[in-house]
Amino acid sequence: MSTNQKTTLALDVHGGDFGPAVTIPAALDILAVHPQLEILLCGMDEDIRPLLEPKGHSPGRRPLLQRIHMVSATHVLTSDARPIEALRRGSGSSLRLAMEQVSCGRAVACVSAGSTAAMLALGVKVLGMLPGIERPALMSRIPSATGHTSVLDLGANLNVSATQLVQFAIMGSVACTTNGTGPAKIALLNVGHEDSKGDAGVRAAHATLSEMAINYTGFIEGHDIFAGKADVAVCDGFSGNLILKSGEGLARMFFRHLDLALRSGWLAKAGALLVRSALQGTLARFEPSKHNGAPLLGLRGVVVKSHGSANREALGLAILEAVAEADRQVPKLIESKIKEYWG
Amino acid sequence: MSTNQKTTLALDVHGGDFGPAVTIPAALDILAVHPQLEILLCGMDEDIRPLLEPKGHSPGRRPLLQRIHMVSATHVLTSDARPIEALRRGSGSSLRLAMEQVSCGRAVACVSAGSTAAMLALGVKVLGMLPGIERPALMSRIPSATGHTSVLDLGANLNVSATQLVQFAIMGSVACTTNGTGPAKIALLNVGHEDSKGDAGVRAAHATLSEMAINYTGFIEGHDIFAGKADVAVCDGFSGNLILKSGEGLARMFFRHLDLALRSGWLAKAGALLVRSALQGTLARFEPSKHNGAPLLGLRGVVVKSHGSANREALGLAILEAVAEADRQVPKLIESKIKEYWG
Repeated sequence: MSTNQKTTLALDVHGGDFGPAVTIPAALDILAVHPQLEILLCGMDEDIRPLLEPKGHSPGRRPLLQRIHMVSATHVLTSDARPIEALRRGSGSSLRLAMEQVSCGRAVACVSAGSTAAMLALGVKVLGMLPGIERPALMSRIPSATGHTSVLDLGANLNVSATQLVQFAIMGSVACTTNGTGPAKIALLNVGHEDSKGDAGVRAAHATLSEMAINYTGFIEGHDIFAGKADVAVCDGFSGNLILKSGEGLARMFFRHLDLALRSGWLAKAGALLVRSALQGTLARFEPSKHNGAPLLGLRGVVVKSHGSANREALGLAILEAVAEADRQVPKLIESKIKEYWG
Repeated sequence: MSTNQKTTLALDVHGGDFGPAVTIPAALDILAVHPQLEILLCGMDEDIRPLLEPKGHSPGRRPLLQRIHMVSATHVLTSDARPIEALRRGSGSSLRLAMEQVSCGRAVACVSAGSTAAMLALGVKVLGMLPGIERPALMSRIPSATGHTSVLDLGANLNVSATQLVQFAIMGSVACTTNGTGPAKIALLNVGHEDSKGDAGVRAAHATLSEMAINYTGFIEGHDIFAGKADVAVCDGFSGNLILKSGEGLARMFFRHLDLALRSGWLAKAGALLVRSALQGTLARFEPSKHNGAPLLGLRGVVVKSHGSANREALGLAILEAVAEADRQVPKLIESKIKEYWG
């Protein structure tokens, strides 16, 4: 965020497993480190007010509260809200209000830990698609040997056309190319590296990307995500969702087994004490809460989805992600890149 | 394998990264523990003979050699052989000969570590599909919290219809239901648990399986594979391949980080010595060589694919998998189950 300019972000305080008890403290944390940030808390007054009241001796809290504004919702969409429900019952909901703050220009970005399906449906309806983009895509970072790999789409689109895969690649390229790094290295996920592999859609997208002025490295396979062979891995949402969730499940199983092994006898327990600090760094890399904040790319505004189970620290990361994307004007950059490539 | 009946298996000695140097010692290992097993070594005479010659003092070797027979090939298909190439140039190749031993009834099963695409193309051509099955599917075991989960398809079919998903489910159910266990618990992989999730094909397969006399538990998500929520997880081959390979990549990265952490200082090194034996059990669970041997289900005969990088022990597991499936007459059981469900 540039230091002199005010940035306003809208936060759906009710999304996620914990709601305001996590979202509001997270918002205050981020306000404390970003003096130019203002946050619009979108939600039910009666749930928000008690959490903003002064508690004991907290002199640092008052100036933060001056940069918080409430946007009163009439209701909250459930975490399993289906798209049709979000569209029909969305008016006045905390999620829709957060998006409307962006569409009317009052905020530059919004964050929610609510239902992905509802965010998608309302994102398209309230903000609309960028010209030249057919569908929004959900992108997230996965830890890799060299840092992390961003993967999209993660479930916004179950079946995708070759054209949509190319659009995802361009959006990922824009979102992951930041100052100081070269252009993000883009790859298409496939069942093999050779040009002949994959179905017609994946091969057609490969042919198009190969001819574009984009840092496209070709097909990569599942294991290449973690080897860090690309900065951005593009695939359909069905596969992406299964890769992401199966990876989370595998990591959880590892940690449980590792933990069991380290408690399996007095020798192992003694050893565990000695290796603990070395292991903690490794484990932290795989901790999902360190990678929270998945942008919904392709909309006319910055929308960031937080993991439903995000804790205070993780929700803070999603807010920071939204601030960074707004600051870099990612939607505007996507629009101009799409125009550049497709006239 | 029943103790009194001779079982003959055909082995493509040239498949995989190491060829006869691994496949032939693995075959001898398995012959040593299965007195009723005979193995047909399909490959180039000049590569096989030197490996069968007596080396030093090995009195146990001679009786094993009596249960080995050679089937001379004229050439070997490369590991990246495409289907069209396998069909055109397959005649006389070690892989095709191994399959022909099954189709002519000389062997009850065959094993190869060759190209999956070539195995599929030749499997369909030489052995043919079981009646009522449209496409073969590749299945493999993945470690889970409760043991392992078998996943199919792993890349034989990139796009699948609802009918094919149902056929995969039935094949997986038959292949994973063994004596002593109840009927295998079958699930469809999807991006959510609710009936409304997924595309039309997945939902249609779900509706059909829900009405079948099969132990169908519904939709599961990626992380549920590792939580052991099902014995068999069914999906299209594109997603299955990406899940399998990304899981392998994640496991490799995890081990590398763990190893680095355990060498990161003298305290960690000392601790690592103490926890080593406890960790080794955990690591072994995730070792791909402990889960080798992926059947190609749906063909008129048992065909088992070994990982290309399989070592001697891992290749032995693929041979044992083939023997077990032949013994249980999996293709015949699949045929009768398909008839039962679909008349």
